[in-house]
Amino acid sequence: MAKHIENIRKELGRHRADAIYLKSKTMKKYLDTMTGSGCQILIAKEKGYLLLDGRYVEEARQKERDLEIILTENIKEEISRIMKENDWHCLAVENSETSVSAYKDFKEKGLDVILLDEELGQMRIVKDEEEIRRIQEAVDRTDWIFEQVKAKIKAGMTENEVSAWLQYYAIASGAQQMAFDTIVSSGERTALPHGRPTNRKIRPHEPILIDFGIQYNNYQSDMTRMLFIGEPSSEMKKIYHTVLVAQTTALAAIEEGKTGQEIDAVARKIITDAGYGAYFGHGLGHGIGIGDGSELPRLNPKSDTVLKEGMLMSCEPGIYVPGVGGVRIEDDVLIRDGKGVALNRTPKEMCILQEETHEL
Amino acid sequence: MAKHIENIRKELGRHRADAIYLKSKTMKKYLDTMTGSGCQILIAKEKGYLLLDGRYVEEARQKERDLEIILTENIKEEISRIMKENDWHCLAVENSETSVSAYKDFKEKGLDVILLDEELGQMRIVKDEEEIRRIQEAVDRTDWIFEQVKAKIKAGMTENEVSAWLQYYAIASGAQQMAFDTIVSSGERTALPHGRPTNRKIRPHEPILIDFGIQYNNYQSDMTRMLFIGEPSSEMKKIYHTVLVAQTTALAAIEEGKTGQEIDAVARKIITDAGYGAYFGHGLGHGIGIGDGSELPRLNPKSDTVLKEGMLMSCEPGIYVPGVGGVRIEDDVLIRDGKGVALNRTPKEMCILQEETHEL
Repeated sequence: MAKHIENIRKELGRHRADAIYLKSKTMKKYLDTMTGSGCQILIAKEKGYLLLDGRYVEEARQKERDLEIILTENIKEEISRIMKENDWHCLAVENSETSVSAYKDFKEKGLDVILLDEELGQMRIVKDEEEIRRIQEAVDRTDWIFEQVKAKIKAGMTENEVSAWLQYYAIASGAQQMAFDTIVSSGERTALPHGRPTNRKIRPHEPILIDFGIQYNNYQSDMTRMLFIGEPSSEMKKIYHTVLVAQTTALAAIEEGKTGQEIDAVARKIITDAGYGAYFGHGLGHGIGIGDGSELPRLNPKSDTVLKEGMLMSCEPGIYVPGVGGVRIEDDVLIRDGKGVALNRTPKEMCILQEETHEL
Repeated sequence: MAKHIENIRKELGRHRADAIYLKSKTMKKYLDTMTGSGCQILIAKEKGYLLLDGRYVEEARQKERDLEIILTENIKEEISRIMKENDWHCLAVENSETSVSAYKDFKEKGLDVILLDEELGQMRIVKDEEEIRRIQEAVDRTDWIFEQVKAKIKAGMTENEVSAWLQYYAIASGAQQMAFDTIVSSGERTALPHGRPTNRKIRPHEPILIDFGIQYNNYQSDMTRMLFIGEPSSEMKKIYHTVLVAQTTALAAIEEGKTGQEIDAVARKIITDAGYGAYFGHGLGHGIGIGDGSELPRLNPKSDTVLKEGMLMSCEPGIYVPGVGGVRIEDDVLIRDGKGVALNRTPKEMCILQEETHEL
């Protein structure tokens, strides 16, 4: 995306670098280019290159519009050569993507190497209209997928089967892939915040926790909802109600000018006052975008990021009581006209499905 | 896995390191432990630690048997502390997983840092019986999934829909996830070796290329097959026949004592002699295991790896003619009793489906 190349050039200027070497899938998606491991990018002030090997060249010629395609068997050597040829001395790299040996190689070739860490995440933190449109599309599909799968869930189905239907509707509706490993847990397993699906069969009166997202047009969604087949226990109802109040209250508190920790504190206080403070073992939210976990802003007790118009984040309080069960409710929230607005439309009231059985 | 911890300790001894810091998903799977980004590992001669944050502690207490669980908010600090407390000075790390800043931090704390690169891939190159059993399970499921999806494919279906059914059967049958981004392409798009599925509808007489794998019990499969709906063109038949002969001949040539480049050359010669040498733009194969692309051995024109009993690799020649189409055929091959044996049972003869239409 030409506009995003300009954002990267501004970042170059800020660090007085001649060029930046980009390897992460996140930055490849940000530039709407090929994401294979054999495709890497060099952006300089007036030029931009997509370096790749033979496997990708045909597809690159069809798709790439902004970057010059360079076919090479040794990308790092080629980058050093381009730097030298243009008399460029200062190369910025992604710290977490650059191996120590690559760093040493560049230094030995006489280059100054600047390590960028959260700077690129900061650059992406405020979404432009095109990005918001894509994320809304991903979120809309996520709502739709959840609706389809909800209609299929019955007692006796395994967690794996629920997860399989999520992937089916995701991919069939044009998602490139799941945004992260799908979480489907049931019964006491919901007390695992990141419970991966198993062959456990879902039983009546149990909670089911579903946390999934899709990658659509390179941008991601992330949503968590609970389902119950028949009436849950009174303790699960109390936990659910507490998380729901925490989620909606924190969501209403999201606004321009507040910090990540202030919003986290709103949800945390409600959960703590209800006696479950020790069972909310993660931050309230993280950035939503291209991200793969690295997206900003964060909403947690340490985050001093000041929220701004166009930022997009999850709001996902949870309570996880070992031996009992857990609840998490999560929306994707955009700051629009100064206030947090949930992009999801899937209802958050407790959803109790009929007790009809299925292969029980 | 206790046995794999011992393999890592031998590696430590070889490099005279006191401990090794492991961050990659690959090595976490190798140790059968938690794979979340907030879970990392330190293995020393007599001790082993799983360092993690609050999100993972409940699950770790249920699952982890071999490593001591340490709850920490700052894993790198904690590692430096453990090294100091035990009077250990030399820390091995994974080169490609260690950021330059982490490397500098460890150096500043007075540690000697050894960068391991392909050494850990070499350590995993010969599979033990338990690993072979798991890979065979993944391959058996892959054959089954392909059979289910083949029965559903009809003209008029989109590539995305075919991909969606692959994921459905994969996850429903207990796969943890797809081993890599599924490739489904049709028509001229099969000339893209890594063509991701789109909303393109599959038409009669076209080739369909399906390349997918699953991760089951941490181990992966990887298979490519072609399908045709109705008779393909004579050129596609010639290409198919060439690739099939190249694949089966190279597979028969795989044996202990030969090098990766010798096997690659067998397939490459057949394809070149048929006039398609310029259209086989990738190596013949790569290692199969836990791997995520880093698995050894490689079968390509540069590989001098000598093949040994217990190694497992893909054998996947391909011909990709822009504007016409492409063919790839791929099996997972184990060296057993000195000879290469394909683990897949899905037939490789040209498979022509009936021309029945479906929402055309």
